Amino acid sequence: MAEKQFVKEVADINENFAQWYTDVVLKTELVDYGPVKGTMVIRPYGYAIWENIQKDMDARFKDAGSKNAYFPLLIPMSYFTKEAEHVEGFAPEVAVVTHAGGAKLEEPLAIRPTSETVIGTMYAKWIQSYRDLPVIMNQWCNVMRWEKTTRPFLRTSEFLWQEGHTVHAPEEEAMEETIKMLNVYRDFMQDTLALPVFCGRKTEKEKFAGAVATFGLEAMMLDGKSLQSGTSHYLGQNFAKAFDIKFLDKDSKQKFGYTTSWGTSTRMIGAIIMAHGDQRGLVLPPKVAPIQVIIVPVAAHKGGVIEKATELKDMLIKKGIRAEVDTRDMSPGWKFNEWEMKGVPLRLEVGPRDIENNQVMICRRDTLDKQPMSMDNLDNALVELLDQVQKDMFIKAKARRDAKIVEADSLDGILKGVDGKNFVKAGWCGCRECEDKVKEYAGATARVMCDEEGVPEKCAICGKQAKHKVIFARAY
Amino acid sequence: MAEKQFVKEVADINENFAQWYTDVVLKTELVDYGPVKGTMVIRPYGYAIWENIQKDMDARFKDAGSKNAYFPLLIPMSYFTKEAEHVEGFAPEVAVVTHAGGAKLEEPLAIRPTSETVIGTMYAKWIQSYRDLPVIMNQWCNVMRWEKTTRPFLRTSEFLWQEGHTVHAPEEEAMEETIKMLNVYRDFMQDTLALPVFCGRKTEKEKFAGAVATFGLEAMMLDGKSLQSGTSHYLGQNFAKAFDIKFLDKDSKQKFGYTTSWGTSTRMIGAIIMAHGDQRGLVLPPKVAPIQVIIVPVAAHKGGVIEKATELKDMLIKKGIRAEVDTRDMSPGWKFNEWEMKGVPLRLEVGPRDIENNQVMICRRDTLDKQPMSMDNLDNALVELLDQVQKDMFIKAKARRDAKIVEADSLDGILKGVDGKNFVKAGWCGCRECEDKVKEYAGATARVMCDEEGVPEKCAICGKQAKHKVIFARAY
Repeated sequence: MAEKQFVKEVADINENFAQWYTDVVLKTELVDYGPVKGTMVIRPYGYAIWENIQKDMDARFKDAGSKNAYFPLLIPMSYFTKEAEHVEGFAPEVAVVTHAGGAKLEEPLAIRPTSETVIGTMYAKWIQSYRDLPVIMNQWCNVMRWEKTTRPFLRTSEFLWQEGHTVHAPEEEAMEETIKMLNVYRDFMQDTLALPVFCGRKTEKEKFAGAVATFGLEAMMLDGKSLQSGTSHYLGQNFAKAFDIKFLDKDSKQKFGYTTSWGTSTRMIGAIIMAHGDQRGLVLPPKVAPIQVIIVPVAAHKGGVIEKATELKDMLIKKGIRAEVDTRDMSPGWKFNEWEMKGVPLRLEVGPRDIENNQVMICRRDTLDKQPMSMDNLDNALVELLDQVQKDMFIKAKARRDAKIVEADSLDGILKGVDGKNFVKAGWCGCRECEDKVKEYAGATARVMCDEEGVPEKCAICGKQAKHKVIFARAY
Repeated sequence: MAEKQFVKEVADINENFAQWYTDVVLKTELVDYGPVKGTMVIRPYGYAIWENIQKDMDARFKDAGSKNAYFPLLIPMSYFTKEAEHVEGFAPEVAVVTHAGGAKLEEPLAIRPTSETVIGTMYAKWIQSYRDLPVIMNQWCNVMRWEKTTRPFLRTSEFLWQEGHTVHAPEEEAMEETIKMLNVYRDFMQDTLALPVFCGRKTEKEKFAGAVATFGLEAMMLDGKSLQSGTSHYLGQNFAKAFDIKFLDKDSKQKFGYTTSWGTSTRMIGAIIMAHGDQRGLVLPPKVAPIQVIIVPVAAHKGGVIEKATELKDMLIKKGIRAEVDTRDMSPGWKFNEWEMKGVPLRLEVGPRDIENNQVMICRRDTLDKQPMSMDNLDNALVELLDQVQKDMFIKAKARRDAKIVEADSLDGILKGVDGKNFVKAGWCGCRECEDKVKEYAGATARVMCDEEGVPEKCAICGKQAKHKVIFARAY
């Protein structure tokens, strides 16, 4: 019956994926629309996912030698014009403060869409000598990009993110850092979000405004579209020259540094939803789930049931499991539905008969498998089971994705591939015209290049010699 | 010699406290000025303090039943006009976005100076029934208040803070929440920042714009001035009525909720600096110090010294102590000065002779006491010593403060008191005129009321009957 109830509540995931997404994010109280068009409110259940993401990523960044700092929200508009590509890329999306403290400002100020310009300015001030390098800093903050079409988590005018910014003396070291952080992201997404990702270099058209090279991480959603889940940019000396980031090298010469930047955002929450969800709602990976085990008392009015549920909860919490008891005055069935929709990895049911038998019922959200488990040693058993769920979710997502990758050697083949909700691998000559044709004809873009797999002989679009192997997909 | 070296580097703490503060915050690399006037960059050493503050406070908030969320940065200007006092208080300081995405906005948007208005709007949407109450949420974010005179951490146009916002059905419960969170702040400041604070109700003049009652926490700085380190506001139904926060009560009647809000900010870092520092620089409480034990190898070129230093570091880190080895190519004396200035609670010196004797030298930053300690069991000994430093710093700060509190029964007495760098307790009739006179005559303001100590007979200003006992002080 549960199934039917949810079919009523959220749109059909196969027929109207976009509506399913909106229904799910709103009904599970992950997010709501803010009063200003295009903004979102991240509600406690959604924000708790973000907190878990932050905690995990932040430890990885610190292990990679990064320190956190905080740079100002407001950036003089003139800073954007210092790097030619950068201003072209970001100026159209900027929100501008013109008045403050009751007066018109002498120079309008941009709300940061990204912080290369202001951080570059500070780095130029702080860095004097090769001894000061490398500089590796990260900040967790809000950014603003005025977007016409918005969707919670995926594209909103304001979003939360982290942005790392580094400066290096040797050119190679900067490129190594770019790839190192790309790999940190990949490991995080695979291990923690259970998301298989394609990592690779972006085409010129798709790269970050001002970068020499951008590397992206692309995850496949249930509808076959790609979601860019993070990027790592090698900026060469572009920003160092624009912002005068110089150092006195060992040979007593003034040299420009080489810089990188890398970022991921609350968008990743959208990726989790759209890569793992099902008709019943969210399916959250245990590592980021705000509640990992929801305990639902059955026949809660019977003596000892609530007490036992609470005792189990305390035992699990002591073991480091995020567990809660749902004591609300609702039927168990209603609660089962609600927590399934909210994607809690494990449901623990406990009633008078279970207590008699010294067992509980455990239901996995990812498989919907239900099995009795002994109360003895339950904490350790659930730690293991959560770990198993985490791993199985990755395996399932990867199998699903891998089954939806096709190769094509023509424009029609690309169209057919993406129409079939696939990622399409194809040869590409490297020219912008062919890339634009794919967009026009198939509504797909070059997500990343995967030349390491072997470049096909011919460009699937123009038939000339191919220079790259590209993954084409429709994308968020 | 160290003493002299620092006298040269930072201004005299007794003769020019303001310059000492600026010198210390810049030279220890806690902070720097941002490119836009009045903004600050929180550098890694300063931000690490903030991270320690956040981690500690956040756990306390969650224990108190609060959940984190995130609300939008931009608020329609019209929202501010809904609560009359609120708009009067904040409109003059607001930064306004008038253009975005290349076009003029239909309605100008304020960058949040505080979020009662936008959070109130969302609460009105979410709250339907008494079952939805209480709502207790907090957000960690940036806010913007355009200030004319700014100083890093103390008053900047943008700063980082947390703001809690709650809604309750019964009036008493909202007042209890206000006091509960005030006490959470007090405990945090005493236990974690080693800061003794006076907690009490603010006068009408000093309260938050839109509140029924504001309670503040006031800490004494080394120059006898007070720094408001946090506030907790009882908002009554003011915001509930302005933003239509209503619920269906058990008796089937629609009622307005009672709301509270409470906040603390990066200002607390300023309080730590100005309450604990000395001529040599910072003195950081162990609980928030980014580095708790700095290990300085002596005769580091000698075989085994760096290895032993690293071994000790690993042992301390394993015990949960934030320890680092300073391996830079500088003299130990230079390093001693640097880490003293940076306020690291304990310095551990280890050289060849120490290794022979199976001991290290430990120097406390707060007392400058130096003593040899055995390497055996050093980790446990330093955990204890850090705890002792934390406690001693509070005792010292409290003794210093308590010695600087005087009573006065005249305007001249108040002036004399604050001129002598004291907090002055005095009777007050409760009228605004008398409060204004204190400001005009003595440059001091009513910090908090402490009626529970017993109200004096007469107002120290006008001589009429006193209604309150007030702490007057000059303030940041």
